Amino acid sequence: MPRKLYELVGREDDRPFSPYCWRTRMALAHKNLNAECVPWRFTETDKIGFSGQARVPVLVDDGKVVFDTYPDTPSLFGGLTARATAAFFNNWVDNVVNPAVIRVVLLDVYNQLGDTDKAYFRKSREERFGMTLEKFVEDPDAKIAAFRQVLQPARLTLQKQEYLGGDGPRYVDHILFGAFAWARAVSPQKLLERDDPLFTWRKRLLDAHGGMASQTKGYPV
Amino acid sequence: MPRKLYELVGREDDRPFSPYCWRTRMALAHKNLNAECVPWRFTETDKIGFSGQARVPVLVDDGKVVFDTYPDTPSLFGGLTARATAAFFNNWVDNVVNPAVIRVVLLDVYNQLGDTDKAYFRKSREERFGMTLEKFVEDPDAKIAAFRQVLQPARLTLQKQEYLGGDGPRYVDHILFGAFAWARAVSPQKLLERDDPLFTWRKRLLDAHGGMASQTKGYPV
Repeated sequence: MPRKLYELVGREDDRPFSPYCWRTRMALAHKNLNAECVPWRFTETDKIGFSGQARVPVLVDDGKVVFDTYPDTPSLFGGLTARATAAFFNNWVDNVVNPAVIRVVLLDVYNQLGDTDKAYFRKSREERFGMTLEKFVEDPDAKIAAFRQVLQPARLTLQKQEYLGGDGPRYVDHILFGAFAWARAVSPQKLLERDDPLFTWRKRLLDAHGGMASQTKGYPV
Repeated sequence: MPRKLYELVGREDDRPFSPYCWRTRMALAHKNLNAECVPWRFTETDKIGFSGQARVPVLVDDGKVVFDTYPDTPSLFGGLTARATAAFFNNWVDNVVNPAVIRVVLLDVYNQLGDTDKAYFRKSREERFGMTLEKFVEDPDAKIAAFRQVLQPARLTLQKQEYLGGDGPRYVDHILFGAFAWARAVSPQKLLERDDPLFTWRKRLLDAHGGMASQTKGYPV
């Protein structure tokens, strides 16, 4: 029975765009594990009800929902301290980086959705943010500048080492890459300048695992 | 010949207040290494000229300037990946956290200095920030609130684990602790609320190594 990864998509089945699903997708590739993508949409709560989770990613292996990692495959973390520090990094991306991305791409996400999801998304997001989607993404240049500013600690790190995890990608890289994979899937906006160390780093991860990420649907970066 | 650590102080020799020196001080304690504090002031460039560095900390062991760590002592990092990730964390503290601290304590630092350093400090900082020291720290409540907000990723992490490094303190903890040790040395302002997970974490580090940090001069936190 193949491994299955439920991933967030919009109208198109083959354009997964959740930063959280992308982490898992990259982590599985890192571990040389295949998984079939099962497209999932915002309003399809029933479809993953079996998992006890309300949101994706949901990973199913041999009919069982997988919550943890595969111990006999390449380490995502590189040790207990690295894992502990990755927890901080994860919180930084979730609470600082991803909110800065959404300020750029919120309307682009909306435009990828089918009609049912569009209605759900507009209502829930306009309630959450207290304004229309259109208002939320006003002045995109300022929002892209703010996003780039937020990334300064990562940028400075990548001036001195190839990956956030050191000589090779680790889960910290996958976590941050998820933000970019998400944006690339839905938005034609240029998040990074070509001379940014993050640009080169993102290219390396797009090309990793035989170009797995670069071959999924997305806009030129 | 004893190990010597040149540390930034103001009027008083025994109130070291640089976040960068505090990292080294904590790291040495972590490694069970003693070091005699050599007080150093902003304007004493000649005193550390021998080291080739313009700023402290300068660590001298057996007459030699030490730039790297002591391999036979307890690991600060916990592995290569953790070390790589600590580089990101270091950049986060230097570029996000410490600037948020200085917006709270700049004038408090000034008030700890002797007259020569005061003149140097006012001139250099007012040029750097483009305003008077007094203007820079206006509205302290808003600045403390901004500082607390900036710490959100660390706070969320410490809700789930005792230290940023996991079960015990690692260099990432020392790096962030430096920001608090610095503030504590110079400023009576309350940076953290008592129910903040960071408050408990800071207390643990103040009490570590036989209360080394808590016994240095500082304000109640």
